[in-house]
Amino acid sequence: MLWGGRFTGGLDPLMVSYNESIRYDRVLYAQDIAGSIAWARANHHRGILSASEFAAIENGFKTVSEEWETGTFEIKPGVDEDIHTANERRLGEVIGTGVAGKLHTGRSRNEQIAADMRLWLRDELRKMEVWLSDLLKVVAARAESEIDVVMPGYTHLQRAQPIRWGHWLLSYGMAFATDLQRLREVIKRVNRSPLGCGALAGNPFGIDREAMAKELGFDGLLWNSMGAVADRDFAVETMQWGATLMGHMSRWAEDLIIYSSAEFGFVRLADAYSTGSSLMPQKKNPDSLELLRGKSGRVFGQMAGFMYTLKGLPSTYNKDLQESVEPLLDCVKTVGDSVQIATGVLSTLAIQPQKMLAALTPDMLATDLADYLVRKGVPFRETHHISGQVVALAEKEGTPMDKLSFKQLQGIDSRFEEDVESCFDYERSVEMRIAKGGTSKGCVREQISVLKDLLYHDGSAINAWGREEQDGDEGYS
Amino acid sequence: MLWGGRFTGGLDPLMVSYNESIRYDRVLYAQDIAGSIAWARANHHRGILSASEFAAIENGFKTVSEEWETGTFEIKPGVDEDIHTANERRLGEVIGTGVAGKLHTGRSRNEQIAADMRLWLRDELRKMEVWLSDLLKVVAARAESEIDVVMPGYTHLQRAQPIRWGHWLLSYGMAFATDLQRLREVIKRVNRSPLGCGALAGNPFGIDREAMAKELGFDGLLWNSMGAVADRDFAVETMQWGATLMGHMSRWAEDLIIYSSAEFGFVRLADAYSTGSSLMPQKKNPDSLELLRGKSGRVFGQMAGFMYTLKGLPSTYNKDLQESVEPLLDCVKTVGDSVQIATGVLSTLAIQPQKMLAALTPDMLATDLADYLVRKGVPFRETHHISGQVVALAEKEGTPMDKLSFKQLQGIDSRFEEDVESCFDYERSVEMRIAKGGTSKGCVREQISVLKDLLYHDGSAINAWGREEQDGDEGYS
Amino acid sequence: MLWGGRFTGGLDPLMVSYNESIRYDRVLYAQDIAGSIAWARANHHRGILSASEFAAIENGFKTVSEEWETGTFEIKPGVDEDIHTANERRLGEVIGTGVAGKLHTGRSRNEQIAADMRLWLRDELRKMEVWLSDLLKVVAARAESEIDVVMPGYTHLQRAQPIRWGHWLLSYGMAFATDLQRLREVIKRVNRSPLGCGALAGNPFGIDREAMAKELGFDGLLWNSMGAVADRDFAVETMQWGATLMGHMSRWAEDLIIYSSAEFGFVRLADAYSTGSSLMPQKKNPDSLELLRGKSGRVFGQMAGFMYTLKGLPSTYNKDLQESVEPLLDCVKTVGDSVQIATGVLSTLAIQPQKMLAALTPDMLATDLADYLVRKGVPFRETHHISGQVVALAEKEGTPMDKLSFKQLQGIDSRFEEDVESCFDYERSVEMRIAKGGTSKGCVREQISVLKDLLYHDGSAINAWGREEQDGDEGYS
Amino acid sequence: MLWGGRFTGGLDPLMVSYNESIRYDRVLYAQDIAGSIAWARANHHRGILSASEFAAIENGFKTVSEEWETGTFEIKPGVDEDIHTANERRLGEVIGTGVAGKLHTGRSRNEQIAADMRLWLRDELRKMEVWLSDLLKVVAARAESEIDVVMPGYTHLQRAQPIRWGHWLLSYGMAFATDLQRLREVIKRVNRSPLGCGALAGNPFGIDREAMAKELGFDGLLWNSMGAVADRDFAVETMQWGATLMGHMSRWAEDLIIYSSAEFGFVRLADAYSTGSSLMPQKKNPDSLELLRGKSGRVFGQMAGFMYTLKGLPSTYNKDLQESVEPLLDCVKTVGDSVQIATGVLSTLAIQPQKMLAALTPDMLATDLADYLVRKGVPFRETHHISGQVVALAEKEGTPMDKLSFKQLQGIDSRFEEDVESCFDYERSVEMRIAKGGTSKGCVREQISVLKDLLYHDGSAINAWGREEQDGDEGYS
Repeated sequence: MLWGGRFTGGLDPLMVSYNESIRYDRVLYAQDIAGSIAWARANHHRGILSASEFAAIENGFKTVSEEWETGTFEIKPGVDEDIHTANERRLGEVIGTGVAGKLHTGRSRNEQIAADMRLWLRDELRKMEVWLSDLLKVVAARAESEIDVVMPGYTHLQRAQPIRWGHWLLSYGMAFATDLQRLREVIKRVNRSPLGCGALAGNPFGIDREAMAKELGFDGLLWNSMGAVADRDFAVETMQWGATLMGHMSRWAEDLIIYSSAEFGFVRLADAYSTGSSLMPQKKNPDSLELLRGKSGRVFGQMAGFMYTLKGLPSTYNKDLQESVEPLLDCVKTVGDSVQIATGVLSTLAIQPQKMLAALTPDMLATDLADYLVRKGVPFRETHHISGQVVALAEKEGTPMDKLSFKQLQGIDSRFEEDVESCFDYERSVEMRIAKGGTSKGCVREQISVLKDLLYHDGSAINAWGREEQDGDEGYS
Repeated sequence: MLWGGRFTGGLDPLMVSYNESIRYDRVLYAQDIAGSIAWARANHHRGILSASEFAAIENGFKTVSEEWETGTFEIKPGVDEDIHTANERRLGEVIGTGVAGKLHTGRSRNEQIAADMRLWLRDELRKMEVWLSDLLKVVAARAESEIDVVMPGYTHLQRAQPIRWGHWLLSYGMAFATDLQRLREVIKRVNRSPLGCGALAGNPFGIDREAMAKELGFDGLLWNSMGAVADRDFAVETMQWGATLMGHMSRWAEDLIIYSSAEFGFVRLADAYSTGSSLMPQKKNPDSLELLRGKSGRVFGQMAGFMYTLKGLPSTYNKDLQESVEPLLDCVKTVGDSVQIATGVLSTLAIQPQKMLAALTPDMLATDLADYLVRKGVPFRETHHISGQVVALAEKEGTPMDKLSFKQLQGIDSRFEEDVESCFDYERSVEMRIAKGGTSKGCVREQISVLKDLLYHDGSAINAWGREEQDGDEGYS
Repeated sequence: MLWGGRFTGGLDPLMVSYNESIRYDRVLYAQDIAGSIAWARANHHRGILSASEFAAIENGFKTVSEEWETGTFEIKPGVDEDIHTANERRLGEVIGTGVAGKLHTGRSRNEQIAADMRLWLRDELRKMEVWLSDLLKVVAARAESEIDVVMPGYTHLQRAQPIRWGHWLLSYGMAFATDLQRLREVIKRVNRSPLGCGALAGNPFGIDREAMAKELGFDGLLWNSMGAVADRDFAVETMQWGATLMGHMSRWAEDLIIYSSAEFGFVRLADAYSTGSSLMPQKKNPDSLELLRGKSGRVFGQMAGFMYTLKGLPSTYNKDLQESVEPLLDCVKTVGDSVQIATGVLSTLAIQPQKMLAALTPDMLATDLADYLVRKGVPFRETHHISGQVVALAEKEGTPMDKLSFKQLQGIDSRFEEDVESCFDYERSVEMRIAKGGTSKGCVREQISVLKDLLYHDGSAINAWGREEQDGDEGYS
Repeated sequence: MLWGGRFTGGLDPLMVSYNESIRYDRVLYAQDIAGSIAWARANHHRGILSASEFAAIENGFKTVSEEWETGTFEIKPGVDEDIHTANERRLGEVIGTGVAGKLHTGRSRNEQIAADMRLWLRDELRKMEVWLSDLLKVVAARAESEIDVVMPGYTHLQRAQPIRWGHWLLSYGMAFATDLQRLREVIKRVNRSPLGCGALAGNPFGIDREAMAKELGFDGLLWNSMGAVADRDFAVETMQWGATLMGHMSRWAEDLIIYSSAEFGFVRLADAYSTGSSLMPQKKNPDSLELLRGKSGRVFGQMAGFMYTLKGLPSTYNKDLQESVEPLLDCVKTVGDSVQIATGVLSTLAIQPQKMLAALTPDMLATDLADYLVRKGVPFRETHHISGQVVALAEKEGTPMDKLSFKQLQGIDSRFEEDVESCFDYERSVEMRIAKGGTSKGCVREQISVLKDLLYHDGSAINAWGREEQDGDEGYS
């Protein structure tokens, strides 16, 4: 093993497997090789390696890399405990240990694993950015094309006020937009280089950290060698981000699961995202949504678990940090898959506008009725009370509120006039809400515009005072 | 697919993999087959299956079982979404779908997965019981054979009072003993049968649930069919138990990591449980202990994550519950491995009694000095203050407390007499603590006896008033 | 301050408040006093205190206790950092510091706080046992009296099969019953005494731990002095138990929130457990249920947070352990309140049986239809497929499944006979499920009987093979 | 109560207290009043309120505000369920309900609580920014003034390589600097206005959201009314940030607790941040550090708990969201206090440079010895092995590595030359590490410069390629 040289005893076989990480860190093979080549080049520039030695290493790694890509790399059980050991062992076989033995000069696995993880994660999160943008594009497109559909809005899962279906879509769209905004910040902190920090104390051969970092596409350096090898905040922040996104997903899925129940019936999932029952022939279950909701726990657990692992650790590298790799790999896969599944679900979902309409009931306009009296000068607290009496009367009489006679309304309050009937109109109700962020068409379109600014421009609109819909918007997609 | 029959659309390939569980639930193959045989037998007794149909099923499953055991079972990608589907699909190929198609009569995968998981978990936890007992036996054996070794006891990581090394061992021994006691309670709740509960509403063919349960070694039934298919408390409780045990492990490992630092130097890990550094030739790192400490986060995260998954789910089966399987499998493996690694570490650990002795300093006897004056009738609050002045004087003079002159002591308080020097004796200090649970040899031996009662008898001692060491104890192991 | 004697510097005022616990641990005043009296009595029996000194202490504490109870105890800011300090300081004022200064002989605050917390928690959990039993009694009573009400059962929130309302009630009843069973185990582990364990090393004056423990109503001793002062597992296990119970509560509340939506309309909350909206006059929101669901996070967080605090701590007492008190106090209050609120909600909830009935649809009998053919000898897999075709036809024709003509059924499969119409009967469907745990009246009554066994007898039935309803059951309450 | 009007039943008294939030949300009184005034002004501009009505409201709130500030505001038990209700109720008493009853026009408590929380949090986080900067200034100042102090650096808590004390300080400094950087991003997302979003559907009176937001100092708007009232991501992100910072704190405290043990002895805490023992007169415990470490669990639990509460909630406002307030308030207080305590601890901590020096041992230079041979052209893997043999020989002979004879070294490898003795110099070892981020003085100074850039300039250096120390730096503070 790499660390050999002074141990005499053997290892407990269970300890070998308990200790080794090659089972999962092999996924980092390409980053590990790229990092090693950058390392060798930098050492060559400092005279540690000759030009021919560097060329041999670079060529040798091409071979090793091809073996990984073609699935012919053979892991030596009990020897290749991690990806670094495996790659260097194999390089030695390919080009001879004389030269390969010079590769690790001044380097520690502590900095190596941190660099590999950051490179891998940066690339994965950039894919994530694309997937998340794809989801937001579907949100924007549906919100636009189905802007006419009105449905009940709920608070406390009780019917509250009419809203547009597109407004509902955008309520989650804005949450996912914040996820996208935050993702871009996370990537910046992930993409910083620990290479050249050694085991803890830095590099004694004056290696050019900046050159290595630039070769590998890093945006900057980590500034303290002890911190750099101990820091797994990039993993923690990624998991916190992922857990927040999946939390949004759990709420989105919950809404859609409820809306796809027979009792609500607002939406129907495509068969591709549903499954049946092994026992009950009539069942069509929203498994995709339930998995999205359920897997939020997986990501939350990875975040919580790894934060727990970090708690109270002494500074610099401790082996405990190895426990960062598996949850991070699975977290990234789970979130990435989930975002894509959500896009699939949303882009194939059928809505049932007539069911939505049928679920609108006149009592949902009780606030509009109160507002009617406000416009007549009655204090809101009083109008709220009066409207409540109208609701109670309708309930007592078993008559929908909009079918109460004008006389009945006047019996409750004489300030009701004939024009009160204008209140009982769902479309009017949503169109009256023209203050920014409201349910009117203009407001919904402004939200779409803000979203597109984030997708196609610099996203400054989301943080500020918005963005009136402009002619140029059509040109975005 | 099993649930086929009315879907026309295809599945998104990503959705197929997002949905399927065969990747990990294949580990339940034996339990799934045993459950199916019990199911078929019970249906045979109710006349659903003829004797020859049952025989065909039972024999067919022998073939399927052998294929799993010899690694020749071929999973059909995209078809065998879970272990239940895979086993039944293969049975149909072996014995024909005419008979195999009768197996699932009145049964749901909802009850099937719950039964498979419980059977598997019960067996694993029984292994765990043995491993944990093994660890406790090493604790008891070392505490006995190294009872003479005295070391510093710490509070706040500051030297506090002398203790026996065996007393330190038993302080963790008692925590692990509680884990063992609680494990036995968990097993009882795990080992209850959901079979015969259907998808949610029970079995319409009057299946004999008790007979099936007894065939499979269950201790009892789950009493409500809706609850039975939705209940993953057995997984939650196992993970809570595991997270508590690993929490103990994290503290045990922390102590030993500190004790194996150069500065403390109380213990040395065997090479088999240490590793070196790829950069620093002199390093010998306690990787095993760091992994034990770090993996506590893994188990904590599994517990927290799955509890999160369960939060707020509507009753009965929801697909979210599928997310119980992977964390449970990994939790059980991680805890099981960890207990065995801990046993390996502890049984090969070398202690450095002379280093422990050298770390004892006279100020650790300041309480004994205060107690000395208590015995002369001085109120404790006053003696505490006087002893504090002695400590301060020793510090100021740069003289160990036990080397202050009698005159100096009398200068602080005239009630000190010549016999005060008897206080400055570490062995005397630990032997004076004869109240139950203390550091004297008799007390340490009583603790060992309590532990053995848990390992070899009914464990009632740990909950009650203890157990004086008896002659018969030697016969335990 | 108690620990004075050698410090010269002052404390940062923020540090004083950051450090002190009197703000919340004052709730333990009675336990602290009872423990001190038991301590003094035991020291008297060992000759540390004379009879008159003990009498003075006991009487003095009567005064102190009265001051707490009448709200006249004055806490000295900056001096009384914790309840132990406060009580002893006040005792000294009442009886003089000469005698009061002897109280703490051989004792440490480390053992004292552990004893106080355990005593308090034991008493609170015993109250909890009563409240939880009260909830279960309401479950049993409603399940019995409303046994005739049939409603849709759901899986994946999709209509699945008819069930009894009482069966739904009991599905949660069984979960809460397990909570009750587990609570009794938790209490046993809480109720063990650390008194006499000192700061970490035990008691040097041979104090009689058993006598003290019995005086205070403990069931047994903690067996290792170092473990006893460091052990907060009793808090962790209580919180794990509480988080599990609140997890059940979150699911129960979720079901009822959905059932109380306008779209489902199965239940109506009493006004006492609902609130309105400050804006929308028509709203009646199930706030009580939402709070029950939301507060599950509070308890989960307390559990997770304190487990995190414990992670990786060195052994024995560390000040970090102080962080156990506040979450434990709040956890116990939250769970206790929640159980009582749930009892209030459930006992005042109005059900809408006609709405439940109206939500039953013939496709929910598709499994019964498949089973019908099973009884004719058709393999289940085939019948499942056939029944699926019937469902599809009904959907295509826009005809409820039970209104398809016999000819149409025969068109799908010729083995349908005239008696097939018997399948389309919800009551028959629930009554056919007579295997234990099913939806038939007999099965529901057996569950009630199992529950009553837990409430009024030893609870052995829940773990085993059940309990046929007996005449004697009526006599239980 | 505000929502009155149609309920007839009373409330369960326990339900009243279970439901009400005035106990803790009263802390938001000033924000609630400022928000109400902005609301009234905006409604005045829309003609909902006359100039005199608005003036009456604004003046009335001055009175209410003064009552809060002078502690004379009387909360009506059972009536003032939350701060919104309390403030409006009191306003009505002061100016009459005729005008006060118009205040709430078009407004919902859903938007109100979200606005109050965001305003409060923004202000608190700005204070936090100052406190965190103060901590970093102490880090920078000590790192500069104590740059000459060399101490052992550890990995796996085993002595690894010599480092500078200032380098250790900066390893945590960089972690806290990232916390500061991230805090600034969090504040931006917190400081966005939900006012004008109504209960869920927006405002029907065309209120000017932008004007209100600017009056209250918000940086921008929330863009979807449904999302705005349901969004507690600002609380989640704050808690995630706080939990990360406290995680750093737990590691920093752990290092210092270990360093302040008798065995290490590198640092001594000021008396102001230590406490003693009620039993052991010699003890001086690092309670401040233990509380910092322990309270990390408190904040973690608040984050985890509230994320759990949010999981799977249907969209818009649900009462569950009320559970955001208490954990957020306590989280902010705990983190704020902790940062200040840490600053106090660090600025009064005494270091023991001679103890640090004494803990440096020649085997910590084994890597330098291997590097020596690398410079002679020997491949690193070989030099690592050779140096390992030197370590083993020194251990076997019981001779410090630097005291082995030149002959002994040559006996291991003939390529050792006389100049090898230069390797055994700790100061040379740290000064050789001149690559960025290393232990040399130049590198440490560059880190200080990067830190100052974050504190006094735009902080761009931390994300990029650093910042050579410049003359102008001195002018920063």
